[in-house]
Amino acid sequence: MNPARLAITAGEPAGIGPDLCLMLAQQPSPCERVVIADPHMLRERAQQLGLTVELLPFDPDALPTAQAAGQLCVLPVSLGAPCLPGQLNADNAAYVLETLRLAGEGALNGRFDAIVTAPVHKGIINEAGVPFSGHTEFFAEQTATEQVVMMLACPGLRVALATTHLPLRQVADAITGPLIERVVRILHSDLVNKFGLSDPRILVCGLNPHAGEDGHLGREELDIIIPALERLRSEGIQLIGPLPADTLFTPKHLDHADAVLAMYHDQGLPVLKHKGFGNAVNITLGMPIIRTSVDHGTALDLAGTGQANPGSLQVAIDTAIQMINARRAV
Amino acid sequence: MNPARLAITAGEPAGIGPDLCLMLAQQPSPCERVVIADPHMLRERAQQLGLTVELLPFDPDALPTAQAAGQLCVLPVSLGAPCLPGQLNADNAAYVLETLRLAGEGALNGRFDAIVTAPVHKGIINEAGVPFSGHTEFFAEQTATEQVVMMLACPGLRVALATTHLPLRQVADAITGPLIERVVRILHSDLVNKFGLSDPRILVCGLNPHAGEDGHLGREELDIIIPALERLRSEGIQLIGPLPADTLFTPKHLDHADAVLAMYHDQGLPVLKHKGFGNAVNITLGMPIIRTSVDHGTALDLAGTGQANPGSLQVAIDTAIQMINARRAV
Repeated sequence: MNPARLAITAGEPAGIGPDLCLMLAQQPSPCERVVIADPHMLRERAQQLGLTVELLPFDPDALPTAQAAGQLCVLPVSLGAPCLPGQLNADNAAYVLETLRLAGEGALNGRFDAIVTAPVHKGIINEAGVPFSGHTEFFAEQTATEQVVMMLACPGLRVALATTHLPLRQVADAITGPLIERVVRILHSDLVNKFGLSDPRILVCGLNPHAGEDGHLGREELDIIIPALERLRSEGIQLIGPLPADTLFTPKHLDHADAVLAMYHDQGLPVLKHKGFGNAVNITLGMPIIRTSVDHGTALDLAGTGQANPGSLQVAIDTAIQMINARRAV
Repeated sequence: MNPARLAITAGEPAGIGPDLCLMLAQQPSPCERVVIADPHMLRERAQQLGLTVELLPFDPDALPTAQAAGQLCVLPVSLGAPCLPGQLNADNAAYVLETLRLAGEGALNGRFDAIVTAPVHKGIINEAGVPFSGHTEFFAEQTATEQVVMMLACPGLRVALATTHLPLRQVADAITGPLIERVVRILHSDLVNKFGLSDPRILVCGLNPHAGEDGHLGREELDIIIPALERLRSEGIQLIGPLPADTLFTPKHLDHADAVLAMYHDQGLPVLKHKGFGNAVNITLGMPIIRTSVDHGTALDLAGTGQANPGSLQVAIDTAIQMINARRAV
């Protein structure tokens, strides 16, 4: 089996994305890391960080190879304007989007086995006049995927979300039977096909405190969630819940589960990031491609300082490799 | 200074509350523990558990004394019907409420320095035709306290809630400027007066994911929370936020804070119970009395088996004693 080939988008050039790629390049790699970024910017940043990195031109026609310490392949895209660490510039929004587009294109046509993304800055892309709500939505559209599922993982815990970046007041209405069914089917299918779990057990949070307490604290569990889980169980999917979110994240439940499905962002992610801080990875499920990401932002104030922590990008790469291997084994 | 005197309500007699009281009585105590419960039921339960406990009649006119291992004072209340562990009986609802009433009365008139509560079963009390939504609301009414604040704590983390047992769809409308101000003032005042912190630092969660992301994911931060925090800061209260809840519970923020204010139940409590499992305590702030509680339910299936874990009740008692000492020192 050939080594895997990963597209790594360096993300917002004024943020820590380029730093993280260069820091990780100091370690050898069993797979071919192809950073999609401006090579001049990478060289400048390496100099600022005092790092030595050999940037090899990416050759799509060659077989992927493992990399020695200090090596990175680069698929070059030119910046729209010079970049200073920490200073956002709307003139580089098109550059950032082009790096994503190339990654998605290469993953779709099989040139890349997976995409790993460093952080982008949504605000500056929107300021440039491009509607952009995040990597996940970008790749969903590019791969013509109607429903994707956002999952974060750290050692010992995986949390998928039924809804993601919605104002809290819109969450309850967004929780419908068809949504729960779509999300659970994707989560189950990807746990089987991309994580190599033959019969995964999924814990499902209620929407309301105490999972509604038999209707005393909200009826969505009785009217929507429980019936949807029943339909899914009849298809043979192992589901436990709906459970109260405040007691779900304890060993009694977690010790016997492969993933948690939270109903919304701040129900599931505070625990995940508390437990996995610096070692969490964001995984997009439901697409025909494998995509993982860091769990943090651009940290503009740390760019170019050498203070950025590459832990999450390392976990994102490791997770992508595990998923590639699991998919190859299916 | 006299030893403190604690009222401990044994809670639902079919649950693990009586078990936990008897298990804790095996240790000596620097304060006087007064269990409010049916002494016959306690003796029966002790026999079932194979525990030896000396039940001393509570004498309100005597000075409080420390207790040897195996000793408990009892303020007797008679069951309405015989009790079998694990079997709820609506005929005992009035008994449970009477134990709470006596505890509250004694705390208000200074006979008890604090109340510590074992779990009750809301459902069976409601079935008996008594509207009852929980200990917190019961004691708030008894002490004529308009606004109470629920806080859970474990070693290293305190989480207070702006809203508690509300269906999720009602949360956004419940978050108002006056509510935030009332809750923060109570939290601040009790951290000073009952926890002995001279200038506490409080982290405040946003309501929406990413704390609303400058209005892109909801406007409550901009329109309600930020202005309320500004008003409170002008009174000299140290407040940090609103912060995104998913990144708030990491060392970068928590290491420099005394408490977290979450906007709703499942935003703050999953982390707290994940971190503090088995060692968390529920504290009611804002009342003229000190009240702490276990963070778990009645666990009917464990009653009478000896399998219940008294950790949370022990932490609730320890916390009450610390609060009594802090209040005495003010």
